[in-house]
Order: sequence, then C-alpha cells, then structure tokens
Amino acid sequence: MPAFPHVTPAVQGMTGSVFSALAHRLRQYQGPVYPLHVGDTWMAPAVGCRMSDFTEEKVPGMHRYSNPHGRDDLLDAIVHTKSRHLQCDLSRDEVLVTAGATGGLGAVLGAIVSPAEKVMILAPFWPLIAGIVRSYRGEPVITPLPDEQADTSVLRGVLDAHYSSDVVAIYLNTPNNPTGRNLPASWLETVADWAREKGIWILADEVYDLYVYRGTHHYMHSLAPERTFSSFSFSKAYGMAGNRCGFVVGPKSMMKYAQKISTHSFYSTPTAAQLAAHAALTTEAGTEWVRTARSAYSELGYWAAKRLGTVSPDGGTFVFLDVADALDERGLMPLLESCVDNGVLLAPGPSFGPYPTHVRLCFTSIEPEIMKQGVEIFAGLIGR
Amino acid sequence: MPAFPHVTPAVQGMTGSVFSALAHRLRQYQGPVYPLHVGDTWMAPAVGCRMSDFTEEKVPGMHRYSNPHGRDDLLDAIVHTKSRHLQCDLSRDEVLVTAGATGGLGAVLGAIVSPAEKVMILAPFWPLIAGIVRSYRGEPVITPLPDEQADTSVLRGVLDAHYSSDVVAIYLNTPNNPTGRNLPASWLETVADWAREKGIWILADEVYDLYVYRGTHHYMHSLAPERTFSSFSFSKAYGMAGNRCGFVVGPKSMMKYAQKISTHSFYSTPTAAQLAAHAALTTEAGTEWVRTARSAYSELGYWAAKRLGTVSPDGGTFVFLDVADALDERGLMPLLESCVDNGVLLAPGPSFGPYPTHVRLCFTSIEPEIMKQGVEIFAGLIGR
Repeated sequence: MPAFPHVTPAVQGMTGSVFSALAHRLRQYQGPVYPLHVGDTWMAPAVGCRMSDFTEEKVPGMHRYSNPHGRDDLLDAIVHTKSRHLQCDLSRDEVLVTAGATGGLGAVLGAIVSPAEKVMILAPFWPLIAGIVRSYRGEPVITPLPDEQADTSVLRGVLDAHYSSDVVAIYLNTPNNPTGRNLPASWLETVADWAREKGIWILADEVYDLYVYRGTHHYMHSLAPERTFSSFSFSKAYGMAGNRCGFVVGPKSMMKYAQKISTHSFYSTPTAAQLAAHAALTTEAGTEWVRTARSAYSELGYWAAKRLGTVSPDGGTFVFLDVADALDERGLMPLLESCVDNGVLLAPGPSFGPYPTHVRLCFTSIEPEIMKQGVEIFAGLIGR
Repeated sequence: MPAFPHVTPAVQGMTGSVFSALAHRLRQYQGPVYPLHVGDTWMAPAVGCRMSDFTEEKVPGMHRYSNPHGRDDLLDAIVHTKSRHLQCDLSRDEVLVTAGATGGLGAVLGAIVSPAEKVMILAPFWPLIAGIVRSYRGEPVITPLPDEQADTSVLRGVLDAHYSSDVVAIYLNTPNNPTGRNLPASWLETVADWAREKGIWILADEVYDLYVYRGTHHYMHSLAPERTFSSFSFSKAYGMAGNRCGFVVGPKSMMKYAQKISTHSFYSTPTAAQLAAHAALTTEAGTEWVRTARSAYSELGYWAAKRLGTVSPDGGTFVFLDVADALDERGLMPLLESCVDNGVLLAPGPSFGPYPTHVRLCFTSIEPEIMKQGVEIFAGLIGR
C-alpha cells in the first residue's frame, strides 16, 4: 500500500476532541456559554508568577532554549519540594521537566512501550492517557476499578482479569480525574505489590496532589520507587495550564530515556514557563495561591456536588455524575445537545472509560458565580 | 521478558546529547566558554514580542490552555503571511501550531509512520529528525545528498538507491542545517516528482526560510501541495526558541491526525508563546527584527566562513566545516576535546549524517564579538 494518502492505524484509534461533534451546534447558539468541560481554573496565577513578571533585564536570555532536562534552579526547587512530599531524598536526575504532565507521561510511555505492547489503565481515567499509549503504538487495556467499598482482593481480581503477558505498565490517577476520589492507601499497596509480582512499570498521575479536601493523598512513589513514574503539573497546582510546564519523578536509570523522548517531542519545556514554575514553588505568593485555591475549590466542589445530588469530591476539580435517570434510549447525546443549546458544555462519560451515562463537570473552569449559573441550568435539564 | 526494568529498543537507538561525553571535561574548564554548538541567537526578541509584554490585564486568561489547534488570531496571521510566502491561498485547517518545529515534525511523523516503516532523510540533516522518526517506532534511512554540482539524474539515482517499499516519507531541510546551502529548485522538483511516483509523503523543514543571504529559498509546498508538510519556527525566525512555538502547513485532510499526535504530546502550544508569535508576525517591530537579524547574520556567516577558509553560507546560522586536515587517525574526538579545553563547543559532524571529519559551528548563538573570539581560538586549533 503506498503511504500517501494514508495515516497510520494507531492514529485512527485515537479519539479526537469530543466536542467536534457538538461544535457546529455551539456555533448556532447565541447566549452565554458555560465551559464546564475543560479542566482549568478561572484564577490567574499568583502575582510574581505571571509571564509579565519576567524580563530580559532580570533574566537575560529568557527567550532562548533551556536545557532539555530542565533549568537547574527549577530542578532544585522540585527536588526540594517533592522530597518533602514524597518523604524521600530525591536528586536532579530523578526529575524531568516537561511540557505539562501530558509531555511527562508521553516521555515515559515513549521510553517503555514497544509496538503492540499493552498498558493497563485504571478507569475512570484522564482521557488523554489512552491516546498517549496509542501515539507510541501501544494498546491501552481499560481496567475499570471496583466499587469504592471493595476490598483489595476484589481489586486484585480485577487486575488479574485484565492482565496478559504483553502488559508493560499500569496507569492510575489519584486524586482522580474525573471522579474526584482519592484511591485508598490499601489499593495503592495492592497495585504496587501486584505490579512488582508481574514485573511491570507503574505510572501514577498525581497532578491534583495539592488539591485534597477530605482524607489524605497517598503518593505511589513511596510504595514502589524502583518502578514508579509520578507525574505532576504546574498547570493544575498553580493555575498556569497555558504555560505547559510539569514534571515527572522516576527511577534514575530511566530518566535519560524519558528525556530522549521529550527532547524529540517538544525539545525543552518553555523557558519562561520554567521561570514561572520556579517562582510558584519558591515564593510565599505561590504557597498562598495554593491555599486560596484549595479553599475555594473545596467549597465549590461541595456546592456543585450538593446541588447535583451526588457525593462531594475528595480532591481535584471535577464532579463525575451518573445521569442515567435523565436519559432515554437514545443515550447521552441528546442531553449533551440540550446542554449545548443552553450554553452548557460538559465532558461525556465515555471519554473516561465505560461510562455511557455519566458526564464530567469542572467546577473551577470559570468564575464561581458563572459556574453556579451553568450548574443551575444543567440541574434543571436533568430534573434535579 | 518482564517489562521492568527495560526500555523499548526504539529509544536505545536514539542518540542522546553529543555533549554528554564532553560534559565532564567541560566541568574541569575554568575560562570563558564559547557555546557555538547550539542553534540559537544572541538577540532578544523584538520589543513588543517578549513575555513581559503580555499581561492578564491586556489578555485575560493568557495563562490558561489554548485550543490545541492554535489560537485563532495566530492561525489567521500565519495563514496571511504564509499564503504570501507559499504563493497560495491557505486556510486555518491547513495549519497546526506546535511546540516548535520539533513538535510539528513529530506530530506529522506520529500520524504517518507505522512501526518499522521507513523515512528517508536527506543528509546532512537536522540532528533531531532521526530521533523523531525512531520515537514513533519508524526507521530513518540516511540518504546523503550528492555534490552540489550534480545534476538531477544523479540525485534521482541516490533517491532510488535508498528507496524500498516500506518507505513512507522523505525529509529534507532547506536552507540546510548544518550546511547553510539552499537546495536548488531543480532538486526540489526532482524530489517532488519522485515522491509522487513512489506515493510517499514529503517533510520539508524550512525553519530558516527568512534567513537567506544568497540566491532564493524555494518552498517545497508549491511543487507538491497534496503530499507536503512544511515546518516553520518562530524560534529561528524571531529569536524566541525558548518559547516553543512553531507550525506546520500541510494537506487539510491530514492536519486533524497530526493534531491528534500533538494534543497527546504537549496538548497545546504555550499560550503566551502564541501571543508573542502573533505580535512578531503582525507588528513592524517583528518585521524590523527579521531585517536586522538577517543583515547581521549574513555578515557574521560571511566573516566566519572566510576566517575558516570555507564557502559562505547561502542561509541559516551555521557553517559546516571539513576539518580532516587537522585530524590524525584518532578522528574527531581529540579535536573536540581540545576545543572544550579552550572553551569552544562545537557540534560533531556525525550528528548530521556520515560526516566523520566535519564540525558544525553556529555563528549566531552568542554576541558577535564573543563568537569571533571563539572562532579565532578554533581556527588556531585547526591551523587556519
């Protein structure tokens, strides 16, 4: 088969934006729009952590390439902060600064997955992860988590049921996007022990680690440091998603391979974004921003969950809601269309795994008062 | 074979930094350093195109995600400018804004290369391209260009000799990094016709299109618009490499697939970088910056080539020099080591293809007076 005009099969299996189907409809709509589908924040970054705070006069060469590994000052600040969080003694060569957590998880998967090898993805999951596995020609194996009350033997049964000898890694996300749940420590231990038995890698996506409102966030790293890659994000932690800066912490021997992939994906993380990230990590303004955001997010999550009649999130910025009672035999699409016709944008459950009657709503993507108006409209549409 | 602790074979084939071998040596050195190995510029971006020029007050939400396709205002500015350069009538959906040209070429290769398929790379080549092919599990086929004087039948013979039925694309770079040569129009026509006969894609890396000092840059797009992806870079054009913003122009039907890969590699191009790129494209300060840089680069390239006794570059920011007469049977490494011991950093020829006795020198990476000192030291070391 000649190459032109074909694409590789892997890319055909990657889902595009869920909104392309609804975009045409949205263009017909004239009223106020409530973009509750995006995971972002209405809060501008802390003063001192904005692009306008960095000048060539203060930081000569700030528009030039940085080291693909990351700027030394940022690496050191990450080492300092995450050593405390992870309760270990990190070094620079266990850290890779990347174009967001997306770039970090891609760098890791690019280094460990060979064509047709599999990556188990605990569901519900962050939507991009399946596509990242496919972009490196691997195959995602969607592995739905049991009920929260299930004990670890049930979880282990689920893991075994989805395992095959071509699985090279398992991915999990806690605090979870979309559900807002913290995975219990006992579950993380089960995953760590099980992954060790099987001889596979662990990808722990913990970008909401600073946004926990109930209970405690447990870091996977401490349970299996030899095989765990943990991804973090300044986007989520400090409200700078547009800067594209995050990082991965992982085994020293592997990070040079992950860096080979990141160097060949986006070369280096934007220099100014690293300056902003460094300021966020090392200034009182950054720390205060997190405190303020956490407090506000916690209240908003509580409010949104209560208004929609569901359980309040433990962490993160989302509510994941089963709206089966508001659907007919046509499923979710007519509801999503009604939402669009009223300016409310939501992320459909199937983006997160086998959840045909769920929607995800971000309660931090727009100013609280506007978010609340959007939630009221949506609540009306589903009769709550 | 258990996955842990192994990496995928593809990543082992990717060359890391050529400087890791020399880094230890550089740490011993105490004097002034002349980093002539990096492709960057000493010039800060134009006033009005710097990070400090963009504020939340003027551009609310500028730290939030942008559309993974690119900001509308930037897409429109690119469409306007590149329609003129390419002498065609582009539309937004033929453009993808990416994390530098690196991100753009990755997005394209991720969309068209299946495992073990091949991409022919005309050499000398930009070093990262081979690793990008490997990161998507393809195989680079290094295809050295004939002498400049060769006619098109010789070129065609070279192409045929390196072709096999699993080749899906051919990559070329003009104005060339590292040689500074413009590929002649007749050669581009030969490549276009030949690629059409074989039914393969063309990747035309034209990031130095605005930096031509002798002759004319010929855009590949006009010769085979149906199968050509052209990559461009604000890094090179406007001195903002650290911002990570570039773009690809390609066939409408393919760009949504390239965007799937870019979305899963770095999600979106940094928002502030897009604002800076837009300012560079649409303001007189941006245009003037290019004029000033082009004039300065042209003089510096002429000076460096003359001082080193080689032919002056047609374009770009490099001189690629055969130093065989200064080497003994131990090859290039002792010379590179001597250079490091004198603070001069150069890129070794083998990074660019089968050029064991060449080095690449960037004449724009540092202030001209310092660059000239570095070149004088290097010239002394090779007896010129």
